[in-house]
Amino acid sequence: MLKRYLLAPGPTPVPAEILLSMAAPIIHHRSPDFLPVLDSAKKGLQWLYQTKNDVLILSSTGTGGMVGAVKNFFNQGDEVLVVNGGKFGERWTKICQAYGLKVEEIVVEWGYAVKPEEVEERLKKNKNLKGVFVQASETSTGVYHDIQALSSIVRKHEDTLFIVDAISALVAHDLRTDEWGIDIMVGGSQKGVMLPPGIAFVSVSEKAWKKAETSNIPKFYFNFKKERENLAKNQTNFTSPVTLIIGLNAGLKMLQAEGLENVFKRHERLALATRKAVQAIGLELYPKESPANSVTAIMTPPGIDGQAVYKNLREKYGITAAGGQDRAKGKIFRIAHLGYADRFDIITAIAGIEMVLKGMGYPVTLGTGVAVAQALLMD
Amino acid sequence: MLKRYLLAPGPTPVPAEILLSMAAPIIHHRSPDFLPVLDSAKKGLQWLYQTKNDVLILSSTGTGGMVGAVKNFFNQGDEVLVVNGGKFGERWTKICQAYGLKVEEIVVEWGYAVKPEEVEERLKKNKNLKGVFVQASETSTGVYHDIQALSSIVRKHEDTLFIVDAISALVAHDLRTDEWGIDIMVGGSQKGVMLPPGIAFVSVSEKAWKKAETSNIPKFYFNFKKERENLAKNQTNFTSPVTLIIGLNAGLKMLQAEGLENVFKRHERLALATRKAVQAIGLELYPKESPANSVTAIMTPPGIDGQAVYKNLREKYGITAAGGQDRAKGKIFRIAHLGYADRFDIITAIAGIEMVLKGMGYPVTLGTGVAVAQALLMD
Repeated sequence: MLKRYLLAPGPTPVPAEILLSMAAPIIHHRSPDFLPVLDSAKKGLQWLYQTKNDVLILSSTGTGGMVGAVKNFFNQGDEVLVVNGGKFGERWTKICQAYGLKVEEIVVEWGYAVKPEEVEERLKKNKNLKGVFVQASETSTGVYHDIQALSSIVRKHEDTLFIVDAISALVAHDLRTDEWGIDIMVGGSQKGVMLPPGIAFVSVSEKAWKKAETSNIPKFYFNFKKERENLAKNQTNFTSPVTLIIGLNAGLKMLQAEGLENVFKRHERLALATRKAVQAIGLELYPKESPANSVTAIMTPPGIDGQAVYKNLREKYGITAAGGQDRAKGKIFRIAHLGYADRFDIITAIAGIEMVLKGMGYPVTLGTGVAVAQALLMD
Repeated sequence: MLKRYLLAPGPTPVPAEILLSMAAPIIHHRSPDFLPVLDSAKKGLQWLYQTKNDVLILSSTGTGGMVGAVKNFFNQGDEVLVVNGGKFGERWTKICQAYGLKVEEIVVEWGYAVKPEEVEERLKKNKNLKGVFVQASETSTGVYHDIQALSSIVRKHEDTLFIVDAISALVAHDLRTDEWGIDIMVGGSQKGVMLPPGIAFVSVSEKAWKKAETSNIPKFYFNFKKERENLAKNQTNFTSPVTLIIGLNAGLKMLQAEGLENVFKRHERLALATRKAVQAIGLELYPKESPANSVTAIMTPPGIDGQAVYKNLREKYGITAAGGQDRAKGKIFRIAHLGYADRFDIITAIAGIEMVLKGMGYPVTLGTGVAVAQALLMD
């Protein structure tokens, strides 16, 4: 028996309570049985998003939510600004271009966070920018972009929407939709809310809904105005993914029992312990600044292949973490501490990393990083 | 306790074996754990579809599959023919129009099947028709369109694709993708394959893939060429809905154990028993011809409201069937015999209908319809 541990930045582990809630007999999405289920989910998401805005629930991956965020609030030919600091920043650009938007990019070196001043400058220079797209946590690099600072800049521009991909940041970071003025924020099920993959969430501000009135991009499946009308009746536009929404309620209930502030503190603490522990065994973090609380990207020492670390963790020790993507492939590996994660998941990760690296010839005194994590995670 | 029975045409009941298979710990969709899971699902779907074509698996409702069938194989301005004989035929038209296709409709009176000769004539008259869209089973009316006859007509036209929405027909009807030459066929999880809602399936012929090369409709989420490339590697383009695909394998395994021919025979027999039983108590079928094996649409007697029958079944007897949609609302109610359905589900449905109608003042001798069903369902 090789016991398995899932420490990847999505899908994340799903607690048995949630898995079993989804094993209940199916209810019909157009029957009265379903109305309180969706009502509870939409209110729970508003709580998690810290918003009074509608939070739509879509039957799709998180990327489907991103696509909807582009299709519903812009016109073909609109100029928009994309912060591209990794694989998912790149995805914003690709989606915008697929639907005929003109993209101006701020290319941020991988491992760095966007400078809010640069966004401010671009908005000053080009008065036509109708939207600013960014990731909260860029999963490919483990960097957190300063959403509060960015939103305080974008919200000054009446004609510009602020769109945040919070797929991996939601739950791990305090993201104050209403207080900060985030117009559109996308989340996904297989991350912080501890669900299997299959649903996306998108919050939409009144400022954004106004734009939706004139958007001319063809849409049918991701038609947010129709989703909004349905949501008001505790329905979705097409067949509701009932089991996942039932699971969502179970997940939100667990998060609510913990309290939002405690949830954020837990993620912050786990992330800090992970960073300090790997640094204690001589490893460098991939982010040069502003590391995310959802996932830690770690550079492998010279001569050691990041993908081999990922493989050894999986095959020898049963730990599924993540390797690097694209230009970071081979150079890094990533450990998530997102959703259903607690102290001994970090201990497991650090112990496993030490054992793998030692096995690969890297000089490490076993327990060094573990002890650092223990100290930071003690009551 | 009011014990609940789900007899709606989707979502359909999910067997405990499948629900529990989905409660297993989450695996990572980019890890080797997932490859055999998707491999098995894709082969199982090919078996069910009776095809060697790729069958794509999408994280969406069935409608998402329909949208993809439009976006990937046509160009803006293409002329297409839609058979519109109900709510879902209407949906083909709406999707095609949303993406700039020019739709020519064959409007079929609700309750009737399209005449294959009419499709033949239209194709003769208009040589520019690039596609023919139809439902196999039109869920809103309970009518089955003759897919074999239609495909034998369309396949003669080299430049015309034949696209079938088989969302509610798959499993209930023998649909021979390769033998008949169906280019694109869409299925959904919450129907015959006995899963919760959340994934769609789409088979694509080589003739259709050639069209995909030149399609100019903007696409990102439903990009079938990318899905095909990923499928070849036992992956999906975006995060795979792993639990639903695991459930799909469990469902396909059950269907395979029964054997495809037996699966079709079971549905045929259940449908026949339902029809004969309701006719025995004086009710008329809504379809005037070609009733589907997935769902039976039944007209309520004069003076009795179809929605009230639906409500009484649910509220008094715990049976969730379906009412009528749109112009059929109030005039009909619908009983599904799809997926995880067997003889005593039909007995339950007929008994319930008799009890409800008697309670509403309709003259029925209890047991009349039940006895007819029993006779047809005896070994």
